[in-house]
Amino acid sequence: MQPTSTKSITRWAYAEPTQVEDELVVEEPLEIRVGQQSLIVVMRTPGHDFELTAGFLYTESLITSCDDIAIIAYCDEVPSEDQPTGFSSLQNIVNVHLTGALDLETQSGWQRNFHANASCGLCGKMTIESVKHQVPPLNSRMHVNQAVFYQLNDRLRAAQSVFERTGGLHAAGLFDETGELLIVREDIGRHNAVDKVIGHALLTDLLPLERHILMVSGRASFEIVQKALFARIPIVVAVSAASTLAVDLAAEGNLTLVGFMRGKSMAVYSCPERISSV
Amino acid sequence: MQPTSTKSITRWAYAEPTQVEDELVVEEPLEIRVGQQSLIVVMRTPGHDFELTAGFLYTESLITSCDDIAIIAYCDEVPSEDQPTGFSSLQNIVNVHLTGALDLETQSGWQRNFHANASCGLCGKMTIESVKHQVPPLNSRMHVNQAVFYQLNDRLRAAQSVFERTGGLHAAGLFDETGELLIVREDIGRHNAVDKVIGHALLTDLLPLERHILMVSGRASFEIVQKALFARIPIVVAVSAASTLAVDLAAEGNLTLVGFMRGKSMAVYSCPERISSV
Repeated sequence: MQPTSTKSITRWAYAEPTQVEDELVVEEPLEIRVGQQSLIVVMRTPGHDFELTAGFLYTESLITSCDDIAIIAYCDEVPSEDQPTGFSSLQNIVNVHLTGALDLETQSGWQRNFHANASCGLCGKMTIESVKHQVPPLNSRMHVNQAVFYQLNDRLRAAQSVFERTGGLHAAGLFDETGELLIVREDIGRHNAVDKVIGHALLTDLLPLERHILMVSGRASFEIVQKALFARIPIVVAVSAASTLAVDLAAEGNLTLVGFMRGKSMAVYSCPERISSV
Repeated sequence: MQPTSTKSITRWAYAEPTQVEDELVVEEPLEIRVGQQSLIVVMRTPGHDFELTAGFLYTESLITSCDDIAIIAYCDEVPSEDQPTGFSSLQNIVNVHLTGALDLETQSGWQRNFHANASCGLCGKMTIESVKHQVPPLNSRMHVNQAVFYQLNDRLRAAQSVFERTGGLHAAGLFDETGELLIVREDIGRHNAVDKVIGHALLTDLLPLERHILMVSGRASFEIVQKALFARIPIVVAVSAASTLAVDLAAEGNLTLVGFMRGKSMAVYSCPERISSV
């Protein structure tokens, strides 16, 4: 499947409508199965589905390394007669076989996000405690000059091939400490783009990403910072705003969180000591 | 709780960092409980939590009218000693008591999104079929002049009080057929903003919204269109792009989907016959 699709649309401008061909970003559900058990359906842009799957399992702390995965493959079941057939549908299901057993009941992170068994007293503080329980604060001593930051946005945008055509995709980019772009992934979901980047790092044995910068095209929410902490990324940069809970988690996790990265200006919400001016 | 919070941040611009006070959008988890059962935790911006809860239950087809709700209230449990106490945490849990029994196991929409029991053969077509099974196509005969559309963006932005200060919020606005803004809700989550608008309509007995326009500040995804269909809103307008699955669902549901609403220009993805030029 391609990440974009062309549709005929009606374009209105001022006076009269015209019929034009427009390129849209593809959104399709992806079902992730572990063993024979259906785990989740995420709405995503097709492409790099195994990376998305691996990154999702990792940042939800359902696996801890690439070695936990025996097989990732598209579903090879033969659809029954009353179901749609063909390439497309089978490419929307990924089967994962793990080397060990996965016990969902004992996975607190999984339960917190999806089964919602949170106890009374739920608040931002407890949410942050739950992440701290799973992953310790960062101790990376990486330092990056401010000038490096001012190049990131242009480099990410230049690599966003699909966004330029559709305006409909979020991007996540992984940079090294000199500001070189190592990998970019696009998806209709911001979280998916980050999972694809981290999944790529997991599958190519690059984790932990202790000397890297993660940049996201939109805003920085709690879950983006949470995913970065799992991958041990010390610096996260967002084009737009950060939320209070994202900032609180970044500060607790000793992660440098930067927002409003525009031109030669940025807002540093936590751990500014990793950024140098000379 | 307020929707924004002030934090001290480091602002870099060109040369030297300065310490400034910045206003950030608040992100906090909200747990929705039905009966005594925990249903979901959503990350949201505090405010209009009962509307969010009602809208969520409605657009997930867990309830069908305001009459299904007996009570919506914040949790009044006394936290135990090892849990954080105070106003904040108890305002992050909403208890819903329904007039009838809710059987989650029979709720296909709920299962599809959250328990992911989808059968093999999953694809966009099946996803759309699942929505069609729950809600019939629209038959609204509403017509709106193109000139009305060109005013919506400015009116929505003018009403977005928090966005202006933080740049961190999505908005959803409900307009009548003359383009008058009836209600606006802001949230860090796009879906939440829509749920708050629909929840408001549900709680104030405005449903179905058959002569209304819903506008969202970001992109139009599958789930935004799905929520609009449940509330019977015939026209959905997005500031940015629409996805393929959003367009397909809109076309199947006989809903007019408009994207890239900027200045005096827009892209009409489905059912353009509701828009007139004179």
